[in-house]
Amino acid sequence: MKLFDPLKIGGMTIPNRIMVPAMVTHLCKEDGVVTQDTIDRYVRYAAGGAGLIVVEAMAIHQVKSGPLLRIRDDNYIPGLRELTQKVHATSDSKIVPQIIHFLKVARSGWRQTADMLSLAEIDQIVEQFGDAVRRAREAGFDGAELHSAHAYTLSSFLSRANPRTDEYGGDSLEGRLRLIGRVMENVRRKAGWDFPVGVRINAEEFIKDGYTVVDSKHIAVRLAELGADYISLSAGGKFEDAVHTPGQVLFPYNGYSGDRCMPGDWLPRALHAGIAAEVKAHLLSRGHRVPVAVAGKLDAPRDAERVVAGGMADIVGIARGLLADPDWPIKVRSGEADRIVQCDYCNVCKALDGTHRTVICALWPQGSIQAPADDPAVQAPKWAQAEASLTAIPNQSRVELKWPKAAGAATYQVYRADEQGDPQMIDAVKVTFWVDSGVLGGHTYRYFVRPCAATGTPGQRSTTATVKVPAPSYMAAA
Amino acid sequence: MKLFDPLKIGGMTIPNRIMVPAMVTHLCKEDGVVTQDTIDRYVRYAAGGAGLIVVEAMAIHQVKSGPLLRIRDDNYIPGLRELTQKVHATSDSKIVPQIIHFLKVARSGWRQTADMLSLAEIDQIVEQFGDAVRRAREAGFDGAELHSAHAYTLSSFLSRANPRTDEYGGDSLEGRLRLIGRVMENVRRKAGWDFPVGVRINAEEFIKDGYTVVDSKHIAVRLAELGADYISLSAGGKFEDAVHTPGQVLFPYNGYSGDRCMPGDWLPRALHAGIAAEVKAHLLSRGHRVPVAVAGKLDAPRDAERVVAGGMADIVGIARGLLADPDWPIKVRSGEADRIVQCDYCNVCKALDGTHRTVICALWPQGSIQAPADDPAVQAPKWAQAEASLTAIPNQSRVELKWPKAAGAATYQVYRADEQGDPQMIDAVKVTFWVDSGVLGGHTYRYFVRPCAATGTPGQRSTTATVKVPAPSYMAAA
Repeated sequence: MKLFDPLKIGGMTIPNRIMVPAMVTHLCKEDGVVTQDTIDRYVRYAAGGAGLIVVEAMAIHQVKSGPLLRIRDDNYIPGLRELTQKVHATSDSKIVPQIIHFLKVARSGWRQTADMLSLAEIDQIVEQFGDAVRRAREAGFDGAELHSAHAYTLSSFLSRANPRTDEYGGDSLEGRLRLIGRVMENVRRKAGWDFPVGVRINAEEFIKDGYTVVDSKHIAVRLAELGADYISLSAGGKFEDAVHTPGQVLFPYNGYSGDRCMPGDWLPRALHAGIAAEVKAHLLSRGHRVPVAVAGKLDAPRDAERVVAGGMADIVGIARGLLADPDWPIKVRSGEADRIVQCDYCNVCKALDGTHRTVICALWPQGSIQAPADDPAVQAPKWAQAEASLTAIPNQSRVELKWPKAAGAATYQVYRADEQGDPQMIDAVKVTFWVDSGVLGGHTYRYFVRPCAATGTPGQRSTTATVKVPAPSYMAAA
Repeated sequence: MKLFDPLKIGGMTIPNRIMVPAMVTHLCKEDGVVTQDTIDRYVRYAAGGAGLIVVEAMAIHQVKSGPLLRIRDDNYIPGLRELTQKVHATSDSKIVPQIIHFLKVARSGWRQTADMLSLAEIDQIVEQFGDAVRRAREAGFDGAELHSAHAYTLSSFLSRANPRTDEYGGDSLEGRLRLIGRVMENVRRKAGWDFPVGVRINAEEFIKDGYTVVDSKHIAVRLAELGADYISLSAGGKFEDAVHTPGQVLFPYNGYSGDRCMPGDWLPRALHAGIAAEVKAHLLSRGHRVPVAVAGKLDAPRDAERVVAGGMADIVGIARGLLADPDWPIKVRSGEADRIVQCDYCNVCKALDGTHRTVICALWPQGSIQAPADDPAVQAPKWAQAEASLTAIPNQSRVELKWPKAAGAATYQVYRADEQGDPQMIDAVKVTFWVDSGVLGGHTYRYFVRPCAATGTPGQRSTTATVKVPAPSYMAAA
């Protein structure tokens, strides 16, 4: 698979095209220092074989913001160095920190916007980025990624909704690009041209008046000209359409743009691959061979391979899929994709992030704060009887499924196919029942359930239950 | 071109694949009766050669709603009959009305939602749709289109955000489909199976928690099963993210979903073609050959042809492009695409709709409420001098363009190309200057201007101005 070809990114070579995009963990404390739990989380990804691990965003400035990592002064270097050493001791995965500056938010719903920053404050941000990347280098990271996506400062300047009227906005593309340009220049000066620096941007903002691929093609060209060693594409995740919960600070992932950024189960797979392909094609047409990464429901191995092999992007970011199963790369490479603990896009992880709690995957065993280690000795779950009988009962526009318990099952994957389709996993649950409210009356569906051990090892599938959902009465005439 | 192949839609055959989607005109009065201006607008599309003309939404119920057409009782039939007769006397274009029910809105920003309707009210809506389509048949329309897209009643029931908890919602796909299903059944019973009935739906809602192509594939299958003669795909245009202007009723096209529905110049061309292709492919995979229409910035002839020839959809809807130039079909067919009055997506038409004023195109001559008739005698605009000199001056992240007046020019089309690109029309204006705020410093751009008569006939292009935009100072190091 092309997915497992190494790739040179500036001075570093990643062993494969699989990236862990930055994901908040809340595994550190208010002081923002790396903890053993933080280290355990990233070492787990390294053990699983990810090519590039982007460590959750770490702040370059002094600001109250809960349990988020910091890189704002040299005191943070020892903790970060321990993290990089442990990851490097584990595998050939490369590790970079995501470097972030964000503006202030208040529980009232108020938020600081780009136009509230003085020129002196902007100058300070420029210096802080350079200093932070220099610290990343000293801490042993293989490179760094500047966070210029979602709801954060660099992105707010890049935004088509940037409200500034001076040279950092003023309704011109160059104005919007000025801050990231100055930041890159400062980063290079302080951390060196030979230190790989990537930039993450939104391929589209997905907000009213926000920019689209029409602009992001040009933004990507500028980043290439600035010497970015990779360009990572995300989308949405903006404050502009966030829904304010009284008493909470705004969470930029709960509006429509948040749906696009961390898509739930009702959004399509590989939903930003097409936009990435447009950006990639534009870069190539302008002579820029800078690697492009893209994320967004790419955890199906065939989607990931299609994106890389088809040249839509060079690297696939798989966030929730690798949270659910850090061994995804090893399992895909060794032909054991059927042992992957598959993300069902329930977004419990997103809800935990939104309420500042430790981010875990709902598919992990109860109480775990890390994915269970793969263990060859783990037995496949076993049904009590030779054949596990799945019952499927149509009931008022829904189909109710029930099945027996299987010994050693941590989760049950529910599969469905309609008359012409292949079975697709439509959910993964810890209980022994499920209700399908997405069926069409008059159609026949086949279901089966697969019990899975915590490490993903599947047991035998249940019997297949075939059910014809009654057509609604108004269809009699059709 | 495949675009000019006829297509059988139920009992009617459209002469080509070009559709005028429903566009509000505000050319009638508060009473909702067809006026001469209404007739003139649609006869103009017929003269221009559109294959299928969908007349602006007409209401099936008694409700205060400004200058919008009605079909709510038999008294409206004579006016509508005059409209269909005049259109049929003009060309072989087919004409169908868009049939709409909408819920109440108030200037306070309050709006009636789907869950406020009693079962008796729902029953009444079902009957009203059937009666309205029966009237459409009596009025001489070639078919009818049910409006189940955007912010209106049928769409609000189909929505993934449908708040009802009974059999018309209840978080199930079948519940959401129940109203449109009952409506189709009633329409068939009252207007006959042989009367072509299409349905317009959103391919995606583009709102928080809204449905995506994951659901619209299934919705399309159900519509096919209900015997829909065509399925027209639109997107967005919802109340849920509309921005309330104090003292005005909500306008469902001014939020992000409105940007997607009537995309401005910063959104990509052909922006919903990919989603339509997914729906079309799903329908075919399930054995349904029902024609699919799609709209969304498809006015570039090569995009329109690509969509049809590539099987992404069977019919292309071109709303603003045909508003700007109703002769688009004739001009494309006769190889005179360079005479098209090209929409520049300035969305003045959208703003007029949003403020309940007569919808015109800003490219039409001042004071016109209809597109000017094409006139072979119209002279191409002429520059005063043999060569019209375009000046392009880079100025603080922008390029300022100026050119002389041309005699007989109604508009000037501004074209731009970067080093590697082909010239693209980036705007069309009535003045003789333009500012480009979308350039990248360090790049060279070529510009020229084409003067156009009101009928689109172009004069000679201006000289080409080539300008290198200075690179920003921070790029010196790059």
